[in-house]
Amino acid sequence: METLVRPTMCQHTTLRVPTVCPTEFYDLTTHLEALVADAGIRTGLINVQSLHTTTAIVVNENEPLLHADFASLLDRTAPTDAAYRHDDPSVRTVNLTADERINGHAHCRALVLPSSACLNIVDGRLRLGRWQRVFLVELDGPREREISIMLMGEGGQ
Amino acid sequence: METLVRPTMCQHTTLRVPTVCPTEFYDLTTHLEALVADAGIRTGLINVQSLHTTTAIVVNENEPLLHADFASLLDRTAPTDAAYRHDDPSVRTVNLTADERINGHAHCRALVLPSSACLNIVDGRLRLGRWQRVFLVELDGPREREISIMLMGEGGQ
Amino acid sequence: METLVRPTMCQHTTLRVPTVCPTEFYDLTTHLEALVADAGIRTGLINVQSLHTTTAIVVNENEPLLHADFASLLDRTAPTDAAYRHDDPSVRTVNLTADERINGHAHCRALVLPSSACLNIVDGRLRLGRWQRVFLVELDGPREREISIMLMGEGGQ
Repeated sequence: METLVRPTMCQHTTLRVPTVCPTEFYDLTTHLEALVADAGIRTGLINVQSLHTTTAIVVNENEPLLHADFASLLDRTAPTDAAYRHDDPSVRTVNLTADERINGHAHCRALVLPSSACLNIVDGRLRLGRWQRVFLVELDGPREREISIMLMGEGGQ
Repeated sequence: METLVRPTMCQHTTLRVPTVCPTEFYDLTTHLEALVADAGIRTGLINVQSLHTTTAIVVNENEPLLHADFASLLDRTAPTDAAYRHDDPSVRTVNLTADERINGHAHCRALVLPSSACLNIVDGRLRLGRWQRVFLVELDGPREREISIMLMGEGGQ
Repeated sequence: METLVRPTMCQHTTLRVPTVCPTEFYDLTTHLEALVADAGIRTGLINVQSLHTTTAIVVNENEPLLHADFASLLDRTAPTDAAYRHDDPSVRTVNLTADERINGHAHCRALVLPSSACLNIVDGRLRLGRWQRVFLVELDGPREREISIMLMGEGGQ
């Protein structure tokens, strides 16, 4: 078997997303599909990496009631009104800022979700199943968020 | 330091897996190892991406009683018999199909598990630790499932 | 638009980490940054893969009280003192070793955390947000742990 080898290329871009709710599922898919089309990569990978510690990148269905179910699950996992040592000014000494947020619950929710997604590019398109969409999950919004996106693969027709 | 650069190649394949249980840990490892061997890639990455929203790809041990423990954990996380808005026909309007499944619990379980795994290829072999195996996790079976697999890296001896 | 294509290179290294606690967040970031700097890769990916089934690789903040919150969450998710079939010698027959550990809880915690992290390399540096650090999460320590790290991308200035 012979394998035709085309040059591999890498392209990076940064995406800024303004979220509007405390918990939000922001659909990145259309934007990612456009990036893949523009990159001219036929076969390869796209790595979608959030640059924050109270967000996540997940792949699931874009159905609003399901997102309400997801929000309920996250709230059971790490309730907003529970006590977090991260939020206790009487003991905390590390990484304190002037505008410190009460967000221990958001960090805990981020812990059990992926912070990035590596997805395949096939035939010049982002490979996703019928119901799959890629989301930035906001866990401590509203905020302006930043996502680092790397595309790597073979170009050509 | 000089680095010898060999051409990088990308290869994609799709794997179909028939699951037989509602919750199942289907071991993909032997198949993935064969794909790596056939690809002729010496150093690189393999990205194993499920194309579904009620499955996951996880790396853990292949021990049947452990998988029963995993199933119990997933059932505590998102119980089968809880109420999910995704499954409520009195309010749901989006993405409805003729053969709609009652599977809010399965989506919720998928949320807290990875939908893909990016693993290293070293010395021409899938790099895994002693007890590591790669599983498709079925959360709403039995179904025929599809997995997209990208291999990328340097060939040669 | 023309894209300048430089040769892509792949480099692999193994990192050994001695953990000292049953549950521990071991910060790998400084080491990973040094690996990226040494590799001479300007644009690409670094895939950080734990080789164990009772560890995880997560990206979050390095704040000790937050790690105590994380440990509490993991203990609620899969309590240390709950009953796990994986730990029941009266029924277990598979993968038994002479020095078998009581660690069903650790496997269950690993299930809901990522076992690897694929991160971007931009302008010759590991791309991380202001508060992001990369951790090996020890779930059944203290142990000596092994991490497989692949760097892939374009070199040059």
